[in-house]
Amino acid sequence: MSGGIICLGLGPGDPDLMSVKARRLLSAARVIAYFRKPGRPGQARRIVEGLIPEGVEEWAMEYPVTTEIAVEDPAYNAALAPFYDHWAARLREGAAQGVTVLCEGDPFLYGSFMHLHARLPRGMVEVVPGIPGMAGCWTASGQPITWGDDVLTVLPATLPEAELARRAADTDALVVMKIGRNLDKLRAALAAAGRLDAAWLVERGTMAGERVQRLAEASGPVPYFSIVLVHGSGRRP
Amino acid sequence: MSGGIICLGLGPGDPDLMSVKARRLLSAARVIAYFRKPGRPGQARRIVEGLIPEGVEEWAMEYPVTTEIAVEDPAYNAALAPFYDHWAARLREGAAQGVTVLCEGDPFLYGSFMHLHARLPRGMVEVVPGIPGMAGCWTASGQPITWGDDVLTVLPATLPEAELARRAADTDALVVMKIGRNLDKLRAALAAAGRLDAAWLVERGTMAGERVQRLAEASGPVPYFSIVLVHGSGRRP
Repeated sequence: MSGGIICLGLGPGDPDLMSVKARRLLSAARVIAYFRKPGRPGQARRIVEGLIPEGVEEWAMEYPVTTEIAVEDPAYNAALAPFYDHWAARLREGAAQGVTVLCEGDPFLYGSFMHLHARLPRGMVEVVPGIPGMAGCWTASGQPITWGDDVLTVLPATLPEAELARRAADTDALVVMKIGRNLDKLRAALAAAGRLDAAWLVERGTMAGERVQRLAEASGPVPYFSIVLVHGSGRRP
Repeated sequence: MSGGIICLGLGPGDPDLMSVKARRLLSAARVIAYFRKPGRPGQARRIVEGLIPEGVEEWAMEYPVTTEIAVEDPAYNAALAPFYDHWAARLREGAAQGVTVLCEGDPFLYGSFMHLHARLPRGMVEVVPGIPGMAGCWTASGQPITWGDDVLTVLPATLPEAELARRAADTDALVVMKIGRNLDKLRAALAAAGRLDAAWLVERGTMAGERVQRLAEASGPVPYFSIVLVHGSGRRP
C-alpha cells in the first residue's frame, strides 16, 4: 500500500465474510483507524482480531457521544462535528503514508465513515464495499428477504411510532435497524400494521451468540447489533 | 467438503469482492451449479472464471424462459415451476457428494436460488451471504446511500409507473432494480416524483465497463446489470 485512505467494509461480523480484497488490503496496512465507544473494543476492531499485521499502528476514533444525547438535540451535532473534523484532518495527514479505515458492514449504508468521507477530497479515498449487517441477518433467519417484485423498505427504529406503522403496512419486505431502546415502540408499530406475527428479531447475525426469534416472543434489552425482519412473499414459481 | 448443498453469494461482480469463505468453499467444490440464460455464460459462472478447481463438474441450470413471457402471464410460472422442481431434485441427489451452487450478489435478495431453497429440506442447505449488487453500485457512485435516519426503499422497475412515482416521492434513499426495458417508465416516474435530477444510473457496478451517469442524461438500452440510485441526505454532523 503506497498511500491514500482506504475504507474497508468488513461485513456483518464473521471475519470469514470479509471480502478477499479487504483481507488482502488489511494484511498490507501500516496504520489502521476505527470508530469505537470509549472503553469498548469496537465492532470493526473485533472483527479483525488476529488478522492485522504485527506492529501496525492503531488509531482508535472514540465517539465523544453515542446515545447519551438524543440525535434531535442540537448538542448532538455540536459534539460530533468537531470530532469528525479532527479525524478527517488526521486521516488527511496520514494519507501520505497510507491509512486503512475499518468499518463493520458496508461503509456507505448507515456507516459513520461517511462523515469523514464527506470532509475529505474526492480521489483521496477508496471505499471497499462489504456485506451489510442486514444481509448477514436475513441469511441467519434462513429465509429469503425478497422474492419476485417485492418492495423492500429499510428504516431505522428511531422514527416515530406512527411513521413506523405506516411504512410497515406499505411494504412487502421490511428491515429495521437501530433497535436498541426502540424495541417496545417498534413492536407496537408492527402490531398496528398487522405485521407483528411475521416479524423476526435477529441478534448478532453471523457472530458468536447469534440468535433468531419471533419478535412477538422477544423481551428484555437487545444488543446493539440487532435487526428486525419481515420477509417478503412475492412471486414464487 | 463432505456433502450437502452450499449456495455461495459471489458478490457484485469483481471476483475480489467474494468473501474469504466463498473463495475457500469454491476451491473445495467438486460439483458446481449455476443459473444462466441458454447460450450465455451466466454472470455467476463468469465471476468464478479462473477460480474453480480443475476437473470440477459443472451443472448449467438454463432458464426455460427469461423475458420472453411477461411475469404476470400464467405461462411464466407454468414454465418455471417444473424447471425449479427438476433442479431441486438434481441438487437433492447430488447432496450426498456435495454440490456448490453459485449465485451473483446475495442469494436471499431477489435471487433465483430461493426457488430451489424453498423446494429443499431445511438443514440440507447452507447459504453464504454475498455483497449485494446494489452495494457494489452505490460504492461505484462514490456517495453514501443512507445517512442518519434515512429510509431506504428498494424496488423493481417492473412496478406500474404510478406506483414507482408514489414510492419514489415517499422515501429518502432509493434503489431501483430490474431496469432493462423499464427505463423510460422509470424516468417518467422519477420526474413525476421530483427525484429525476438526483437519480444516477450505474451500469456494471464493480465490473469491467462500469459506468455511472445521471439518469436524466442516459439513453439507449441499458445492460441487465444496471441499477438506479437516489442517495439519501439525512443527518450530517
